[in-house]
Amino acid sequence: MQADLICVGNELLTGLIENINSGFLARRLWSAGIEVREAAVVADSTEAINTVLERALENSEIVIITGGLGPTDDDMTSEAVASALGLRLALDRNWLERIEKFFSGRGLKMTDNNRKQAMIPEGATLLKNHGGTAPGSIIKKEGRLIVMLPGPPNELIPMFDHSVLPVLKDFNRGSLSRLKTLKCCGIGESSLEDKIKNFGEWGLPPISYVARGYEVHLQIKGRGSEEEAAAAIEKAENRLRELLGDHIYGSDDDTLSGKVAELLTGQNITLSLAESCSGGLLSSLITDIPGSSMFYVGGMVAYSGEAKRGGLGVDKSLMVKEGQVSEPVAMALATGARAKFSSDLAVGITGIAGPDGGTPQKPVGLVYIALDNGRECYCKKLNLGGGRLAVKERTAQVALDMIRREALGVKRQQ
Amino acid sequence: MQADLICVGNELLTGLIENINSGFLARRLWSAGIEVREAAVVADSTEAINTVLERALENSEIVIITGGLGPTDDDMTSEAVASALGLRLALDRNWLERIEKFFSGRGLKMTDNNRKQAMIPEGATLLKNHGGTAPGSIIKKEGRLIVMLPGPPNELIPMFDHSVLPVLKDFNRGSLSRLKTLKCCGIGESSLEDKIKNFGEWGLPPISYVARGYEVHLQIKGRGSEEEAAAAIEKAENRLRELLGDHIYGSDDDTLSGKVAELLTGQNITLSLAESCSGGLLSSLITDIPGSSMFYVGGMVAYSGEAKRGGLGVDKSLMVKEGQVSEPVAMALATGARAKFSSDLAVGITGIAGPDGGTPQKPVGLVYIALDNGRECYCKKLNLGGGRLAVKERTAQVALDMIRREALGVKRQQ
Repeated sequence: MQADLICVGNELLTGLIENINSGFLARRLWSAGIEVREAAVVADSTEAINTVLERALENSEIVIITGGLGPTDDDMTSEAVASALGLRLALDRNWLERIEKFFSGRGLKMTDNNRKQAMIPEGATLLKNHGGTAPGSIIKKEGRLIVMLPGPPNELIPMFDHSVLPVLKDFNRGSLSRLKTLKCCGIGESSLEDKIKNFGEWGLPPISYVARGYEVHLQIKGRGSEEEAAAAIEKAENRLRELLGDHIYGSDDDTLSGKVAELLTGQNITLSLAESCSGGLLSSLITDIPGSSMFYVGGMVAYSGEAKRGGLGVDKSLMVKEGQVSEPVAMALATGARAKFSSDLAVGITGIAGPDGGTPQKPVGLVYIALDNGRECYCKKLNLGGGRLAVKERTAQVALDMIRREALGVKRQQ
Repeated sequence: MQADLICVGNELLTGLIENINSGFLARRLWSAGIEVREAAVVADSTEAINTVLERALENSEIVIITGGLGPTDDDMTSEAVASALGLRLALDRNWLERIEKFFSGRGLKMTDNNRKQAMIPEGATLLKNHGGTAPGSIIKKEGRLIVMLPGPPNELIPMFDHSVLPVLKDFNRGSLSRLKTLKCCGIGESSLEDKIKNFGEWGLPPISYVARGYEVHLQIKGRGSEEEAAAAIEKAENRLRELLGDHIYGSDDDTLSGKVAELLTGQNITLSLAESCSGGLLSSLITDIPGSSMFYVGGMVAYSGEAKRGGLGVDKSLMVKEGQVSEPVAMALATGARAKFSSDLAVGITGIAGPDGGTPQKPVGLVYIALDNGRECYCKKLNLGGGRLAVKERTAQVALDMIRREALGVKRQQ
């Protein structure tokens, strides 16, 4: 079973808003066994929406349209969909009441424009919207399912997960595709390629993969009945786990920082950080995880030599002798942070993020990451490329992987 | 003049890769006076590419196709474009030599698959690719311009900027649309709406806007000849600057942290941070800016009470009396950081990012941000919504705006 996605909005076509709905919907649809045939972005214009909608209905059983459900004159998705499907727009009194309540509850007056949001194509089933007044809905017509969703992700995502996904799973009984993503780190794209190059010959379902900085994500596609798809994915997953071992840190919605949080919280291990070239990014990734205050004590962003000395007790003569970007200074940062914050583990990072500050001996991208666990302190040296933001990102990823391996007690990588 | 965008790739249709090329190309095309009619994502299939390409050529003078130029069997963009345009594919010996050099330069052996990347539609002009072996090219045919670009943004972006943009500007002489984005902060979407609600009646070109957390971005569209478009935008910009004053911090590619960096560096003002609920995000945004080590001394992520006390000298009895999330503690954090790091300015942040830790008196989203400039210390209280990541993001944005206003010497906001 296939779906077409249509994202409506002039702001998407000028690049004012990034389109994150397409990727989200694609992943969710696959998880419901539905493949995406084509994803289009079109202008706020009845004609444009009509044309692309007719095309989509010719090709796919499911069409999902996002955006253009607001109160302004530009918003014409309901109108366009009604006209393309030959349906009348009718005032939905319950929805109008809901809009009135939404405004009065916030001490605001509803404008006449908002009344437009209660004009619904006849036969459409309205969907709950906890975040706004846009009328998401589902229309079933001639064996097709047409879903209209609001553009803002904070309205679209909960609406899709709560109200649309169950309907799609029901609509799609029988014919299934399944997708599972395995997430790896600590292995380069080319070594990974080498390990899995004969994958296609082992009678396993196809896999795709993409490098995301220091991580590689592998996607397994299973097709057939629900049982066939699940069995095919399981077989491929087992084989990949044999090949990649503890490089695989998780799957699907897992994140590396989430995995680290889970491991540290589960074992009651506390952590502190001393970051130089990563500039607080590692700390920010860790604190993105709800409940990180359970294990993360605190961190220092020691951007200047003075902060390294005064803040963490790194010996000034050591910095002069070895340079601020050196293995001994990374280790002194880790040990200093561990003492200062009284944590079980501490990570110290120093490096040159660029674009300036590099020398022939110590080029941009040279980074040292040290981990002190109280029994020993060890350090990893990296030569990273790709510019300042990529250096920061990869540094944070490698540090997370070092913490993960330390918490797992698995063998260390050089 | 209009363009159609076609992004080719199964990985885009499964959501394994986020599509950032569409937004980038849309913004760049507008800057060259070209509007995007439709942006489509299709599978790696000759048939799918053919269908969407024919449709695009019927509607637009310019078609840009990204992805599917790699060496694997899945990559069939060159083939599909050649067949849709009725062109032969021919081996380009110069490109083949370039590919061979690319591999030998990295100590790798070229595979037979890579030879495929030297099969180019006849009449195509090849574009330089400093980052890889994918053959980007431009084909002119019957008054249409067809541009093929590699999918990875690190290859696509420089190729587009260096080799495609000048050709497009030349191709588009005469008919022009222009786009300018003004970026604001410190004003809510609804107050902004109120200020500009009559904009359409003042004979000015249309504007669109979008809220991005604490920022609002306004996009002005000018149409007509180059002079007409520029004059229309200038007129609208002047009016918006009158209305919005110092809420406008920059335009187009400017960022709030970049603006802060520019202001502090220009005046030789140094900065330090003490973050609690923003967890290092503010520090990371600041260190994203090249040269931030010129003004940013360092920061502390004081996630625990112990880190606040031991690291920054916040009085324990103050935290017990007022609570860790309180105005006096935010101010003590700022003052503590300023003393510890010997900086001119310091910001202290404390709050509840959630989802846990809220109480009826101090709900999730309550945040205090204090700024100490040596003469005085002042504090802003926020009640933020939208979940943990949104609270972190908005906190960092508000703090950046406070630093910006302090450095500008403009009146403080409550």
